[in-house]
Parts: sequence; C-alpha cells; structure tokens
Amino acid sequence: MALIEVCFSPALYHHYPQDAERTVVVTDIFRASSSICTALYAGASAIIPVADLELAKQKKREGYLVAAERNVKKTDFADFGNSPFEYTKEKVSDKTIAFTTTNGTQAINKALNASELLIGAFLNLSSVTSYCLKKPKNLMILCSGWENAFSMEDTLFAGAVVEKLSAAAEFTVKSDSSIAALELWKNAKTDLKQFLSNTEHFKRLMDNHLEKDIDYCLSIDKIPILPYYQKDKSSVSKMIL
Amino acid sequence: MALIEVCFSPALYHHYPQDAERTVVVTDIFRASSSICTALYAGASAIIPVADLELAKQKKREGYLVAAERNVKKTDFADFGNSPFEYTKEKVSDKTIAFTTTNGTQAINKALNASELLIGAFLNLSSVTSYCLKKPKNLMILCSGWENAFSMEDTLFAGAVVEKLSAAAEFTVKSDSSIAALELWKNAKTDLKQFLSNTEHFKRLMDNHLEKDIDYCLSIDKIPILPYYQKDKSSVSKMIL
Repeated sequence: MALIEVCFSPALYHHYPQDAERTVVVTDIFRASSSICTALYAGASAIIPVADLELAKQKKREGYLVAAERNVKKTDFADFGNSPFEYTKEKVSDKTIAFTTTNGTQAINKALNASELLIGAFLNLSSVTSYCLKKPKNLMILCSGWENAFSMEDTLFAGAVVEKLSAAAEFTVKSDSSIAALELWKNAKTDLKQFLSNTEHFKRLMDNHLEKDIDYCLSIDKIPILPYYQKDKSSVSKMIL
Repeated sequence: MALIEVCFSPALYHHYPQDAERTVVVTDIFRASSSICTALYAGASAIIPVADLELAKQKKREGYLVAAERNVKKTDFADFGNSPFEYTKEKVSDKTIAFTTTNGTQAINKALNASELLIGAFLNLSSVTSYCLKKPKNLMILCSGWENAFSMEDTLFAGAVVEKLSAAAEFTVKSDSSIAALELWKNAKTDLKQFLSNTEHFKRLMDNHLEKDIDYCLSIDKIPILPYYQKDKSSVSKMIL
C-alpha cells in the first residue's frame, strides 16, 4: 500500500522520514507551479530551476531566457516574472527558461533527492493524480509555502490530491498533515476563491492587481501535461499523458 | 490590534517574524502541556523544562524529582513519565520537577525569547484565553508537533484559542496557519475524540493502552490555572486567575 504524505514547508522536509523510492510533487499554486505548467504547455522545451538571483544572472549571461521573481515582482534583469500570462507561445516556444521565484524553486531544490520529482498545480491536477494512480508508490506533496511559513492555497492543492488518491485502493493516508490538508480541501472546494479570500498570498496578489492570475491559478484541469524533473539534464520537462 | 499567529512546528518558529513583545503559548496536548497543568494544579511548586536526558539525569543527581519521557515511555531513571495521572498530590505537592519529553520541552526551549511564555492545553483553555483578553498583545500559539512534524491535536487547541480570541475586538487573525487551525477546530469541536481517531499520536497512545490519558487531555477547562515561565528562575510556575 502506497503512503501519501503532505509536507507544509520546505523547512520541514528533512523532518519527515526520507524515502529514496518516493515520488515528490512540489506545488506553489500562487504562482510558480502554475507558471511552469503554463510555460511548458505553451511549448517551452525545459525549465531550469535556479535557487538564487546570482545563478539566474549567470544563466542570462549564458544566453538563456530568465524568469526571476521576488516578492511578487519581476526582477529588473529578467525576461519574465511569475505571472502565468507572460508565458505565451510566441515568447517561449522551443526555449529553455532559467526560473527562480521566492518560494517555488526553493522547494524544488529541497526535493532533488526524490526518485521522481513532479510539479503539480490545480491546472494539471488530474495529470498528477492519473500518473500517480498508474504508478502507485509512496508520495509526498511538498508545499512551497511563503518564506517557509504554511500557505493555504498549496495545502488545498495537497488536499485535492489526497482526496483523489485516497479513494483508490492502492493508496493510504496516515500522517496528520495529510488528514488536515484533506479536511481543509473539503471545506474549500465548493468555492475555492471565496475560501481563500482572507489568506495571505491571495491578498498580496490582489494588492498587486493580479486577480486574473488568481482566477487562472485556481482553474482545475486546464492543462493536460505533467512537468517532471530530469536529473540528467537538471531541468524540468513535460510528460504528456 | 493584537495579532494571533499559529506556528505548526518548533522547526518553523524562527521562520515566523520575531517579536520580542509577543506572548507565546506553547502547547503539547498529548501530553506534556496537559501533564504540566496537572502537576502544578496538584501542588507542584515548579517545573524545570530540560532539553535532553543528560540534563535530566544531572537534575536527578541534584535531588530533584524527574519526569522524563521518550516515545511515549518513561525512561528508566525517571520518577514520572508523561501521563498526567502520575502527577498526584501525594507525589508532587511542594516539589520542583525537572521535566523532559519528546516534543513539548523542545518547543518551550525554542520560545524562551518571548516576553511571556505560557503553557496551554484543553484542560486550561479558558485560563489561557481569559489572560490573553485581559492583556491583549500579539500572540503566537506554538504547537510542539511530533519530532517537528505537524500534529493535529496541538493544531486543534490553537484553533480553539483563535476562535475565542478572534471573536474579541482586540484581536485579529492574518496568517494562513491561524485560519487553517480555526477551520480544523470548527470541523472537530463537536466530537474531538472522533475527529482525532485516525491521527498519529492518538493511535500511538491507543497502541500503548492510554485511552484514559486521551480522554483526560481532551477535557476542556478542568484546570483553572495558567502555567507561565519565570525567566529569573528558569522554571514554570502557576498563575491562579
């Protein structure tokens, strides 16, 4: 029986049992994982997650397109910020993009030891769960959070995955964090946007006039691909299911 | 307006904004904070939290009574384990007890920089909230968790505090963790024991035949005292409200 775990913060990752065989799904709903799904679906050939701005600048000098965001804003030297709407077919087709954001890429870097590392968002929820159901093995959903603090929208995505998978005979839920994510998702799912309206990053995006990003990132199953990390290339590519 | 924060793990404490003026309420429902409330109510004069077993042994050599638990079991050299039923009037009256447990005393040690450090449990819920309402200032509820992982019962206690305080004009809730704790508490409060029946530490205690500890630790407002840390004495004493 495969176990589903949820980790609420990259800073807690090493406090959970390590399992080299496990699949890790990294999520950062607002907005890194939603933007990565969008960019790859629009035709980008790969995303290179980079941990800091210095490395991002280095990639820029090497000729890559660069996405770099800190605290909701695009940094001055970058080609893209973190809004999924920036990743149009015209701009990204067949391009490799170096990508660094406040929280999402930090979480990806924490989970590089996983046997498979996937990127999940509401946009590709069914792609994540279909793949996990096809290859049932222990799974952790790693929430990026905000500067290592708990974030609601990532937790709700984790709860949605827990709901879909725990309904299948192959998966089981044991940890309190998985139970909490599922409970919160059940409270939220009939009106995600309303449920999130008092939460921190929702308000931060609204303050930055990014309601259309919120609406888009909360759309379920708009994107039928699964981004996964290719260890040999140190970059994220798309799997088409 | 005073802010209520909830921190789900001692390992996340330093990732939340530090605030030297803040009150911190440490909770470890199963069972350290429940046992501390019980021991002080039964007449113990003070509890000295000690971080590790070596320090606990040292305290034993100095002549103190010692409570030392690891993974639900009393350690061999200790006078008490972590069951609240061990702390009877006969054994604890006027005694100072050195106290170390798997999770609870680690959380206390993280929060020693707080301007006031209180110990909360369901047993003294109203004592915690009455005191906070009398002296409204920024508050963090620090959940001890289990080996730094998220734990449901501590989170539900935090949610109960958030519910009581956020109903008052002096307090406000902003962080996602506080909202999550409140949502989970609302789902759980009509039948706490049933809600917790699939959670990790509940099952661990049941496996150790400790259902009566569970029932007791989930009782609300049995104890009208508030344990608080006295910095000048490096120990926890009781405030009678």
